[in-house]
Amino acid sequence: MTLDLSRPLPELLQAIVDIESVSGNEAELADAVESALRAQPHLQVARIDNNVVARTQLGREQRVVVAGHLDTVPVAGNLPSQRAVIDGQERIVGRGTCDMKGGVAVALQLAAELDAPRHDLTWVFYENEEVAAPLNGLGIVADAQPDLLQGDFAILMEPTSALVEGGCQGTLRFWITTRGTAAHSARGWMGHNAIHDLREVLERIAGFERREIDVEGLTYREGLNAVQVEGGVAGNVIPDSCRVHINYRFAPDKSLAEAQALMTDLFEGHELDWVDLSPAARPGLHLPAAKEFLAAVGGEPGPKYGWTDVARFSELGVPAVNFGPADPNKAHTDDEFCPVEDLETCAAALRRWLAPLPAAQPAPSTTQEEQ
Amino acid sequence: MTLDLSRPLPELLQAIVDIESVSGNEAELADAVESALRAQPHLQVARIDNNVVARTQLGREQRVVVAGHLDTVPVAGNLPSQRAVIDGQERIVGRGTCDMKGGVAVALQLAAELDAPRHDLTWVFYENEEVAAPLNGLGIVADAQPDLLQGDFAILMEPTSALVEGGCQGTLRFWITTRGTAAHSARGWMGHNAIHDLREVLERIAGFERREIDVEGLTYREGLNAVQVEGGVAGNVIPDSCRVHINYRFAPDKSLAEAQALMTDLFEGHELDWVDLSPAARPGLHLPAAKEFLAAVGGEPGPKYGWTDVARFSELGVPAVNFGPADPNKAHTDDEFCPVEDLETCAAALRRWLAPLPAAQPAPSTTQEEQ
Repeated sequence: MTLDLSRPLPELLQAIVDIESVSGNEAELADAVESALRAQPHLQVARIDNNVVARTQLGREQRVVVAGHLDTVPVAGNLPSQRAVIDGQERIVGRGTCDMKGGVAVALQLAAELDAPRHDLTWVFYENEEVAAPLNGLGIVADAQPDLLQGDFAILMEPTSALVEGGCQGTLRFWITTRGTAAHSARGWMGHNAIHDLREVLERIAGFERREIDVEGLTYREGLNAVQVEGGVAGNVIPDSCRVHINYRFAPDKSLAEAQALMTDLFEGHELDWVDLSPAARPGLHLPAAKEFLAAVGGEPGPKYGWTDVARFSELGVPAVNFGPADPNKAHTDDEFCPVEDLETCAAALRRWLAPLPAAQPAPSTTQEEQ
Repeated sequence: MTLDLSRPLPELLQAIVDIESVSGNEAELADAVESALRAQPHLQVARIDNNVVARTQLGREQRVVVAGHLDTVPVAGNLPSQRAVIDGQERIVGRGTCDMKGGVAVALQLAAELDAPRHDLTWVFYENEEVAAPLNGLGIVADAQPDLLQGDFAILMEPTSALVEGGCQGTLRFWITTRGTAAHSARGWMGHNAIHDLREVLERIAGFERREIDVEGLTYREGLNAVQVEGGVAGNVIPDSCRVHINYRFAPDKSLAEAQALMTDLFEGHELDWVDLSPAARPGLHLPAAKEFLAAVGGEPGPKYGWTDVARFSELGVPAVNFGPADPNKAHTDDEFCPVEDLETCAAALRRWLAPLPAAQPAPSTTQEEQ
């Protein structure tokens, strides 16, 4: 399979989407990406597992990293992709079109096209973003060759409807188990019903104030949800155990430890069995590199509600924002799609920012900025 | 394996318990029971699947049915049986000792011993009482040869601590499903959380008044319990579905339809997906056969909280009570046991009632009763 990166973006996106790449099955797509990028003489290409990193080496003062994951959640009868006009909007429909092969298509096309960009560029295409954190390709590259990910600024091309979304909310997940005493349900008073104790846990969830929190001018909306529940063994036994899986999404005004303490207080008297501890990332839109990007892209930046790999860049010391085609609310849905217009909007914005300046106009320098 | 029915009851019980007979695996024990009963010249023996029915044919005016199931719930490291003195009480400990091989041991010994009883006797040993109703051996015999179960009065030898327990509570089981709208849990407000809706269902359960209800002089204590709960698909998805399995145990003052209506009202606005509809049985202790039995056994009769096969006899038109060794609260527990004393108490009571009268004393007749 050869990817022609010069094709119109909607066609390129369909070609990428139709190479199924559910997490763990990215090899074929990674091969196609690697092969297409190796054909570009201006790029140095590295491959680690199913992660492909391609870099310009032009000696520019700054380096920008643009990253996108190759994997998708499981297919739900929504492949191969389709191109259709729905609600008056031209769309590419199918698994991965929104999350996040639209961004991958834009990045691949620009990787081939921008052979003399204003900043040096690092293009990262990685595996296993949709599954357990230890498998995440960005983490694997960071562990194996951290220098490959270094830069002054990073763009993660997760879906944002072609708007800049700064930072990301943190996410905590934990189980709470209620304990009772088993008994035959004909003599329920001999036991203690653990499922009935769930009511009190659900009441605390209901009573928790979901705040809207301003961080560096962006408003983050928090969430607290019971996402799974299970309890009981049989129709005639008073259940002696019931457990509920709880997810807290918190704004980047809190550290991981502060968010954990908040939950520990809320569920005082219960033991919290932690299964996910992912810190939030502050937007960082006040940083010079971010400002330059915002000026080129235009529009008002917003907050990122979901946890994304910008938090990983944050930990590597690289300021990062989310910016990509498609509505993030369609991620993981069976009817996910990418508006064709978003593809063009994102590509045009990145071109404006990264293309070489016209000869008549001097490039902005740090000195000019400081005046 | 040969069962010697003349052995002391504790030894006979251990021999029966040590033939493992978890529901579906009753063949070996049924073979042993059949073989031991066929060796008794005063009994006519029939076998249907793993159900054994043995009858005297003495032409008596009345016939009494004595029944016990051969199966147990799954073994929990509690076989083979042990004989021990615990808390100053001599006990046989192990799976099935309480529910209900103690009763089976008493019935088998008396079946062999009472070769000229006051009433004709039908001894029933059956399979699959602990599992789904359609498999129940008593139901299988009732369908195949209903005449085998006919009689004027029946004793079901379920554990009652050697007291007479009249009737049985009914039991309803149903699922209630709450429906929501899935969304990514980072944007929970885009969806509707079905697990959070469970709170309101649990509140109705908590608010339901568990009454104590007098029926024919016996006090039944009702129960309403959530026995199983399940919901949610993943840690990052707002659950669109959650279901809870509810068990209502009701007194025999209500018909099945009345009990169903009560639950339908309580959970108004929800659909009830019924999975068990078992009617209660009224105690019937005012009936002549029951009175005769009570007089011979002595002691105060009580209510039966659990659903038992007395309700099946009730449907066949045969008044029935529960009467057997061991504490019903130990049924299905990993430490179930049968007190040795209970075995002797039950056997002695049945002997007093069923043994031929001494020649000098005339048997009570219906005429005398009416005086």
